[in-house]
Amino acid sequence: MESSTHPKSTDHRFNDAERNALYQTIFSRRDVRGQFLSEPIPEDVLSRILMAAHYAPSVGFMQPWSFVIVRAEDTKRKVHKLFEKAHSEAAGMFDGESRETYRNLKLEGILESPINICITCDRDRAGPVVIGRTHIKSMDVYSSVCAVQNLWLAARAEGLGLGWVSILDQKCLKQVLEIPKRVIPVAYLCLGYVSHFFDKPELQSAGWRPRLPLADLVNFEKFDKGANDPFATSLLQRVREDQNKIEDRGLCENFAAAGKDASSG
Amino acid sequence: MESSTHPKSTDHRFNDAERNALYQTIFSRRDVRGQFLSEPIPEDVLSRILMAAHYAPSVGFMQPWSFVIVRAEDTKRKVHKLFEKAHSEAAGMFDGESRETYRNLKLEGILESPINICITCDRDRAGPVVIGRTHIKSMDVYSSVCAVQNLWLAARAEGLGLGWVSILDQKCLKQVLEIPKRVIPVAYLCLGYVSHFFDKPELQSAGWRPRLPLADLVNFEKFDKGANDPFATSLLQRVREDQNKIEDRGLCENFAAAGKDASSG
Repeated sequence: MESSTHPKSTDHRFNDAERNALYQTIFSRRDVRGQFLSEPIPEDVLSRILMAAHYAPSVGFMQPWSFVIVRAEDTKRKVHKLFEKAHSEAAGMFDGESRETYRNLKLEGILESPINICITCDRDRAGPVVIGRTHIKSMDVYSSVCAVQNLWLAARAEGLGLGWVSILDQKCLKQVLEIPKRVIPVAYLCLGYVSHFFDKPELQSAGWRPRLPLADLVNFEKFDKGANDPFATSLLQRVREDQNKIEDRGLCENFAAAGKDASSG
Repeated sequence: MESSTHPKSTDHRFNDAERNALYQTIFSRRDVRGQFLSEPIPEDVLSRILMAAHYAPSVGFMQPWSFVIVRAEDTKRKVHKLFEKAHSEAAGMFDGESRETYRNLKLEGILESPINICITCDRDRAGPVVIGRTHIKSMDVYSSVCAVQNLWLAARAEGLGLGWVSILDQKCLKQVLEIPKRVIPVAYLCLGYVSHFFDKPELQSAGWRPRLPLADLVNFEKFDKGANDPFATSLLQRVREDQNKIEDRGLCENFAAAGKDASSG
């Protein structure tokens, strides 16, 4: 434990290069569906990204996650069949032009990626009463999602592409992976080295949906209540400028030092 | 877009220092309930961590999140009252000794932290049919959780403590923040600079629950099926070694270079 009689805001801040590394990881992370290479993932890399997941926050320190690592062609084929069925059902839910666009989107890399990982949530991991889950029952599932996001960021930093396949019937997936009743398969992930990462999310480039202006999503004191004082107005102005930097200049190499207080080192 | 005729696994990997920065952020992130300083958070820092959240993955590029920034004493007091009510109800759910331990835990920093942020999920943000949400309805909420985790990591790197308060009645919270029916308040967060970060999670140090051995949570092909081949056995051995490093040596400064292939620069 660190301590100081006169703590300052910069005491626990990572330096510019370190913060930039985190922001670059976050901004360049992609949901990868194609581009997978068959090259195997070394065990030390796999261990590190699993560790990143395991050090996610969890409600009541429950650590409700487990990891099912899928490498066998047979298992992958069974899961891929589930995807094909669900994907076909999903296409029927879109209208007209959207349906054709949807059909042509590449939405998974189950067979091409060398490793698939299913991250689960065991709702009974810590008994029936869990600190912090008493009033929001899904907090345990949220914990497993935090583990997914940690693993995703670590994978990106290790140069691994990751794609989250959610077009699957969960009941059928549980059968294939023999997941017991009390456990939820939260995420089915495809993982592998890639030929390239795209600059922007594929659905953004395809014109399916634009990146929303963050300043439109930030409110003050109440939902739907915009800036109503100098701090709020100034914050939203800064948010607009920061987002322009990322969207216009690509990955904005010195993002963490872009602010006024860029003096830490 | 990057491309190469002979892609290699190390092509897209961040260098050792950059990967270490990410792992250090992940391993030193804490759920902060006390230790908050009243010092204000500069707008450029706040803008960056909101940006980290906004660049989270989202199902169908839905970006379902909004952010309600709470600074007013009056709003904080109302939310704090909700916490006190829920906390008292929760205490009644624990038995005997656990109940006393629970009562004595510090579980929120709503009033002490300069800024609270509620991160929400607007289920109607992208119309009724969303790519990837057709078979798992909660994928949109999971997207907002990914935004929470991105913001949490960025906050840690910026030297800010963050605590997730889940002991709240969501319906009452929606009333206080005037959140419409279609929108879920996914996370209520307390944010501020801190006097110190703890080395380990508080519930771990308090003996409430131990950190689980990750190797026990990793399975192959099926849930509950352990290592059954040399790769799996070797991976689990590596996982045990890596976890020992983190738990024994604290934050393990050179974690990313611990592997065999630590030659990237």
